[in-house]
Amino acid sequence: MIKGVLLDLSGTVYEDDKLIPGALEAIEPLHASGFPVRYLTNSSRIPRNKILSRLQGMGFTVHAEQIFTAPAAIQDYLREHSLTPWLLIHPDIEEEFTEFHGQSPDAVVVCDAEHAFSYENLNRAFRLLIDGASLLAVGDNRYFKQAEGLSLDAGPFVRALEYAVDCEAIVLGKPSQAFFHAAVAQLGCKPSEVLMIGDDVYSDINGALKAGLKATLVRTGKYRPGDEGKIVEPGASVCDDLLEALRDFQA
Amino acid sequence: MIKGVLLDLSGTVYEDDKLIPGALEAIEPLHASGFPVRYLTNSSRIPRNKILSRLQGMGFTVHAEQIFTAPAAIQDYLREHSLTPWLLIHPDIEEEFTEFHGQSPDAVVVCDAEHAFSYENLNRAFRLLIDGASLLAVGDNRYFKQAEGLSLDAGPFVRALEYAVDCEAIVLGKPSQAFFHAAVAQLGCKPSEVLMIGDDVYSDINGALKAGLKATLVRTGKYRPGDEGKIVEPGASVCDDLLEALRDFQA
Repeated sequence: MIKGVLLDLSGTVYEDDKLIPGALEAIEPLHASGFPVRYLTNSSRIPRNKILSRLQGMGFTVHAEQIFTAPAAIQDYLREHSLTPWLLIHPDIEEEFTEFHGQSPDAVVVCDAEHAFSYENLNRAFRLLIDGASLLAVGDNRYFKQAEGLSLDAGPFVRALEYAVDCEAIVLGKPSQAFFHAAVAQLGCKPSEVLMIGDDVYSDINGALKAGLKATLVRTGKYRPGDEGKIVEPGASVCDDLLEALRDFQA
Repeated sequence: MIKGVLLDLSGTVYEDDKLIPGALEAIEPLHASGFPVRYLTNSSRIPRNKILSRLQGMGFTVHAEQIFTAPAAIQDYLREHSLTPWLLIHPDIEEEFTEFHGQSPDAVVVCDAEHAFSYENLNRAFRLLIDGASLLAVGDNRYFKQAEGLSLDAGPFVRALEYAVDCEAIVLGKPSQAFFHAAVAQLGCKPSEVLMIGDDVYSDINGALKAGLKATLVRTGKYRPGDEGKIVEPGASVCDDLLEALRDFQA
């Protein structure tokens, strides 16, 4: 019944630059057997080529086109709509946006900017938005897990700007249906034949369910006891980790 | 019918350190005739004694006890509930919170911290909140007017933390009913006998109406065309400025 799998990365496959125990043993047999797998991440602190080399360095047989990142979805949207962005993003992914430089920005792009979320930058974004710029966001994830603890993701800053301006952001990563469906299409499956696995009950699980996919919440990464109760639609399961979540798909 | 007046400060009486034209001529006759007037502000970038000396320097016959500030309401709440705060506030008002220093904070206090709204500080606040600390906020004002343009107020950062943690802030300044009613009680009036005048349609106008007061929105400060349409209850009027709003109360 499940013909393809979508995997979240941070908190599901790795945390910072460390593999989550069991992730390689759980996933690599699927790659080896040719089972359709794609990676779907809202992470926007490191560029896509670094995500690829990190995964390959960890031992995964993965190719660039198997990784769907929310910043890449934003780049597609900027091109399609001929928008000039003002970037509230992490300095490490600026290289991905070099083609979009221009005067008179008509869009504010919000990724997980980390320390670039300064009052000065948020105020600049606010002033562009209240003058009519569009608000494009990588996601509305609340927080994620780092070695040192939970840390704020882009979502709270997106909500701050939405509230200040009384507007609604266009979210281009998870939980956007278009983002899930782009990956599902590349898998060659129908949404109902695809399982999304992740540690974020809002973006990964509720987002996938709303987009018509199946979903499994793993108790790794940012998972906190009680997250199961935040699943809003039927069709989800909960597993300890990727090993348990992918047990039925091993050849 | 109106026996007392509450006045917002920033954007209504002054902007930065400049009087809004007509404000002195509108208010000072009320002070001279003994008409009950109090000032009610969520401003938290300067301490209350500086607000007092600013007003006196502008020519107002005003005393300390006539000024109700949201940071003072937070201090009262901390004392009443024996809370130890972690402060996300502007460095210029730290002097007002010296009595509250302590280890193991069990409350996060959010005022208009301006440049102290760094990623690092917001993350620190987030981690305390997700571990169970209470969130106390000066207000939920979206923005205010400075000489250089509109600037983000505390509200968007309060919403960011509420969203990150899935909690609700205790707002102790406007639009809190308790804050309005404390000033109304000092006026010796019933709420329905008091007129609140301000430039913030949410905190000043809708807040006052919900607390049972009358309200007048002035088209100064942060006012933007269309704000009239955001008034959610009957009982409000709209005036160009304080001169027009207070015309009927001149001796």
